[in-house]
Amino acid sequence: MSSLNPKIDQTIKILIDKFGNNFTTNKGIRNTHSKDESWHHPSIPDGVVFPNSNEEISEILKICNEHKVPVTAFGTGTCLEGNVIPTSGGIVVDMEKMNSVLRVSQEDLDCTVQARVTRKQLNDYVKDLGLFFPIDPGADASIGGMAATRASGTNAVRYGTMRENVLNLTVILPDGRIIRTSKRARKSAAGYDLTRLFVGSEGTLGIISEVSLKLFGIPESISSAVCSFNSIEGAANTVIQTIQLGIPVARIELLDDVQMDAVNKYSNLNYPVKDTLFMEFHGTENGVKEQSQLVQEIAKDNGGKDFQWTTDLEERNKLWAARHDVTYASKALRPGCDIWATDVCVPISKLAECISATKKDLSKSSLIAPLVSHAGDGNFHLGFIIDRDNPNEIKEAEELNERLIMRALSMDGTCTGEHGIGIGKMKFLNAEHGEGVSLMRQIKNTFDPNNIMNPGKIFTP
Amino acid sequence: MSSLNPKIDQTIKILIDKFGNNFTTNKGIRNTHSKDESWHHPSIPDGVVFPNSNEEISEILKICNEHKVPVTAFGTGTCLEGNVIPTSGGIVVDMEKMNSVLRVSQEDLDCTVQARVTRKQLNDYVKDLGLFFPIDPGADASIGGMAATRASGTNAVRYGTMRENVLNLTVILPDGRIIRTSKRARKSAAGYDLTRLFVGSEGTLGIISEVSLKLFGIPESISSAVCSFNSIEGAANTVIQTIQLGIPVARIELLDDVQMDAVNKYSNLNYPVKDTLFMEFHGTENGVKEQSQLVQEIAKDNGGKDFQWTTDLEERNKLWAARHDVTYASKALRPGCDIWATDVCVPISKLAECISATKKDLSKSSLIAPLVSHAGDGNFHLGFIIDRDNPNEIKEAEELNERLIMRALSMDGTCTGEHGIGIGKMKFLNAEHGEGVSLMRQIKNTFDPNNIMNPGKIFTP
Repeated sequence: MSSLNPKIDQTIKILIDKFGNNFTTNKGIRNTHSKDESWHHPSIPDGVVFPNSNEEISEILKICNEHKVPVTAFGTGTCLEGNVIPTSGGIVVDMEKMNSVLRVSQEDLDCTVQARVTRKQLNDYVKDLGLFFPIDPGADASIGGMAATRASGTNAVRYGTMRENVLNLTVILPDGRIIRTSKRARKSAAGYDLTRLFVGSEGTLGIISEVSLKLFGIPESISSAVCSFNSIEGAANTVIQTIQLGIPVARIELLDDVQMDAVNKYSNLNYPVKDTLFMEFHGTENGVKEQSQLVQEIAKDNGGKDFQWTTDLEERNKLWAARHDVTYASKALRPGCDIWATDVCVPISKLAECISATKKDLSKSSLIAPLVSHAGDGNFHLGFIIDRDNPNEIKEAEELNERLIMRALSMDGTCTGEHGIGIGKMKFLNAEHGEGVSLMRQIKNTFDPNNIMNPGKIFTP
Repeated sequence: MSSLNPKIDQTIKILIDKFGNNFTTNKGIRNTHSKDESWHHPSIPDGVVFPNSNEEISEILKICNEHKVPVTAFGTGTCLEGNVIPTSGGIVVDMEKMNSVLRVSQEDLDCTVQARVTRKQLNDYVKDLGLFFPIDPGADASIGGMAATRASGTNAVRYGTMRENVLNLTVILPDGRIIRTSKRARKSAAGYDLTRLFVGSEGTLGIISEVSLKLFGIPESISSAVCSFNSIEGAANTVIQTIQLGIPVARIELLDDVQMDAVNKYSNLNYPVKDTLFMEFHGTENGVKEQSQLVQEIAKDNGGKDFQWTTDLEERNKLWAARHDVTYASKALRPGCDIWATDVCVPISKLAECISATKKDLSKSSLIAPLVSHAGDGNFHLGFIIDRDNPNEIKEAEELNERLIMRALSMDGTCTGEHGIGIGKMKFLNAEHGEGVSLMRQIKNTFDPNNIMNPGKIFTP
């Protein structure tokens, strides 16, 4: 048993007693809860519990709080900064059984789901009602986890991130209190915004058990387009001007030449190996035509070549499959290696400059790192292709990553647009927020005085 | 001197010493800072200070915190729930001199302003750049005050409220710390969302001194429409279906028959005295035409009559002037009286039911109360026309208001969509948020342990 948690034996006894087969110390199951999808090193919890209800979560938290045992909530384990790695051991609360869609309203365009419902599961559930939920991080993540990391994805430029799309949450606090953060009205000026406080709190303040979300009507018409550029500036300026003109582009994604090369090789395609924009337009039939015509003109003015436009479902799917496969495509460049996906976001006026400087820096390194950007948000990822057992490569990636983050911060950007702080970005929180971190710590201390909720995340000890 | 604040004399001496002519105890000036635009009773502060900088605000707060003297920040004083009335006396910090636009970026579609810049001032400043800021509470409020009350207005259905449109804030805490709540990137997953915590905190956690805001490109084309209905259900269903189809209507406002009668009389117009929708569409020339054609069809299916559509600037201005003059129009129904504007917001599926039940309740009362609704958000106001010196009328309005709020809460709505809690809605905070209020109080206590920031607001003592 872990020496980190002196009262763990006692806690485990109580949990066995209360939860029977829904609690386990099985080594294999603990192992699967020791990691996420990042390059960060695993850490094995002392036990894993599978609650069935808010009340059971409340009971678990009360027990752990009394014994000062760490608790980490676990959804799909698809996070990218070690956000769910139980670095202090303790109990993992696997939300597996909390996976029901509780209600959907076609009239209100909203729904309430338990935290472990995944985004694809939700979309399957609501599509026959003509509805969809747009937030799409790469993985088929759980809605609770997406709320906890303030996730976004390719549609955020039009539909917002989890920050804008969560209507309310049910949260269980470390002392067992069950809170609903707000009513279901679209807006409210009644008191502090508890919803937004828990969105992005990465399980450090409480466990999110239910989420009410905005939904959207499936657009009458969808078109996609792809266009390559001779320079990153041309692509970035196309994005800036598109947004400035108020063209309601649904997706506008930038892949650099390295990424395009990987995509071509992986998916047997023959796109030009150049900085390329992938776009999607949602609206009426006339609307999407007009939007793409406008963007085509803007792209042309910025040196865009071979603007290809389609409403055909099969062609659209092929195009977006290529975009969504970037991680696999990158991995295929160097079989057996891992992808360290980093993530910064800058004001859009700085995007070209930040990317150019980053690529220049990268060109001096031995590492390959394809780039993909949710350009409409000023957000981009580098995927360092590394051998995680090679300390030199880890060191080189760390140094490149640190310079990238300091570059983004110097441009009034953030050290993470959508992956969260986890353990990977902890050292940059002060650089980004300065004295603001002291306020965050005050909130943490008053909500979780025993520091049991996902300790060792967000804040350096 | 106020007996509420034993150390007020000492505090005043220090403030005179430090701020000279920028501090005053002049009775007339104190009187103008004793009230807002609501029916709530005035309360006179002990002194008023006019800081020039963040550092001066910091100094004021340190002094007041040391002496445990209440501090209330004051912008334009246009709030509607007593939010800035210094009910415990103390010092009012009038932000008058903090009224500069600090920066505007055309490329990033954003700006940073000092808190006392008003929304019209900002729009005048940016219009030559082809930009605008959409949030429009009735009054020409200060941006800082709008952030503090989580304001919205007629454009929120398309552009969001202050919650969605504030990028970051500079906030001065009661202990004098100066915090910037985040960087300027469009999205971030770095730590707790301090920005959203201060938006809507009504001056109870700190003083907002600077605000970075999203801006939008002025649409290529704007059209307006007006349409009357035989029933509130027809109007509400038109709104629901418009939003469900994803038609990006910029404004969709519902005025009831009583309000339309007032508007006609006040502005010498001859609209049908029926439940009426006022709409605005933003987009390309073809886009706004298509949008309004779609809505016209929806309206027709729901019994809408005389759908009138225009892109003509003069006609549009006339139409929206009628909408914006509702308060004056209501006042003109009973000269010498006040308007008690109340404010609830419900899920849109409940809007017709909530309005119908409210009008039925109202029909049994002696009071007149025109109704105006930001229907796209499910938000509506009743304007009780009252003689504030008549306790029977106040009592009747209070009872109607309480029933209205409990009705909205029972429909999963909120006791205030955009006016804030202030003093007027304090008694409903627990009914709305239950145990969540205890979390809000924990935040309040840790940020402001001496309870000097706008005490007696949001939370009942």
